[in-house]
Amino acid sequence: MKLVGAALARVEPGEVEIEVPFRRELTQQQGLVHAGFTTTAMDTACGYAALTLMPPGSEVVSVNFNVSLLAPAVGGDLVARGHVVRSGRTITFTEGAAYVRAADGSEMKVATMSATMMRVELA
Amino acid sequence: MKLVGAALARVEPGEVEIEVPFRRELTQQQGLVHAGFTTTAMDTACGYAALTLMPPGSEVVSVNFNVSLLAPAVGGDLVARGHVVRSGRTITFTEGAAYVRAADGSEMKVATMSATMMRVELA
Amino acid sequence: MKLVGAALARVEPGEVEIEVPFRRELTQQQGLVHAGFTTTAMDTACGYAALTLMPPGSEVVSVNFNVSLLAPAVGGDLVARGHVVRSGRTITFTEGAAYVRAADGSEMKVATMSATMMRVELA
Amino acid sequence: MKLVGAALARVEPGEVEIEVPFRRELTQQQGLVHAGFTTTAMDTACGYAALTLMPPGSEVVSVNFNVSLLAPAVGGDLVARGHVVRSGRTITFTEGAAYVRAADGSEMKVATMSATMMRVELA
Repeated sequence: MKLVGAALARVEPGEVEIEVPFRRELTQQQGLVHAGFTTTAMDTACGYAALTLMPPGSEVVSVNFNVSLLAPAVGGDLVARGHVVRSGRTITFTEGAAYVRAADGSEMKVATMSATMMRVELA
Repeated sequence: MKLVGAALARVEPGEVEIEVPFRRELTQQQGLVHAGFTTTAMDTACGYAALTLMPPGSEVVSVNFNVSLLAPAVGGDLVARGHVVRSGRTITFTEGAAYVRAADGSEMKVATMSATMMRVELA
Repeated sequence: MKLVGAALARVEPGEVEIEVPFRRELTQQQGLVHAGFTTTAMDTACGYAALTLMPPGSEVVSVNFNVSLLAPAVGGDLVARGHVVRSGRTITFTEGAAYVRAADGSEMKVATMSATMMRVELA
Repeated sequence: MKLVGAALARVEPGEVEIEVPFRRELTQQQGLVHAGFTTTAMDTACGYAALTLMPPGSEVVSVNFNVSLLAPAVGGDLVARGHVVRSGRTITFTEGAAYVRAADGSEMKVATMSATMMRVELA
């Protein structure tokens, strides 16, 4: 996520929020943000959310994610939130969503994610 | 996809292949290609595959995709293939996969996608 | 759903709850409720939830659903809830969950669903 | 699956086929087979397929599945096939499909599944 100026806006046990300031080069021809980029932001939020509930020395790997593209992501900053639905020893189930935030602070939900995360031990 | 040097390598009715030459800036800290980038490549291949079977004047929108991350995508060029499973008037079901291609031409499947595409009329 | 004694417990605009009284014949060898049955209950709740926001003369068809199996569904009545995340002219995005309700009324979430529904005109 | 007369029609390493003879009570009002039932058949085929590649003493649990409903499942016997896409120590990725088989032996694909399976040790 380093490339795109993303920042961890909030980290709590089982919940993470990521903000990505609007940048023109993230948009496609029609001014839309890539679905892949929205996906990366939600995947990152979900992965960190899972990590907050894992024991020290853990790393998290995305096994599977399912994304619904509710609406075009146009203009504005992108906000992605992820939270843990159920945390197990090996598998953690997470859900996330992405929002476009307008200049007045209002948000529109543009995508949702359901992601299966796996804990791996750091080498 | 313009940003990342992707190219349409093959287009046939219901089938599309996309190639993305390896570039260091696509990798994360560990030399892995972003899951979001792999997803974008598969989504694009699936979307174009759907479009090849639609009447002129159609545009394609991704409604939903499900991605399984089989293995880390390390090094090499990325190849994404998409094909149509069933093409309907409104909804087209597609499947895709992403591969890392080594210098000797061998490929390793690193991710799979199942994507639901919707036809919309061009304005 | 007629076969299995399911009942609509609550119907509001964009939200539906279904209850299925515990019956031994729904369980597998280990006393677990089939994943397929839990899926049917959530799919039905999501489909009805979508239908509540559609114009008269509409019928709803499940296009795709994604199910996470959080925990074994053992004993107790099954409760499935579905709600609309975004309702469009053709596509409605829904989410649902299934719970096992114990005799004391407490509930355990056992599965989640993200389902894409499509509106079709009644013949 | 005992309830519904399903039979293992073919078992090979990493591949399983299940057949379910047509029975009127599996159908809904319109003569369609439940999506939940089709899902159960595919989930079972995928789970057994995963199990064929696991060491003795393993049990398989479905973590997540994603189902696309390509066409109504009307009449005829139901056939579900599952195969392993990638088998790991803990996680096995599988894909499956369901078909309606007509009296003349011809098949129509009615649904596809992508399922994430987890290996657990038998107690």
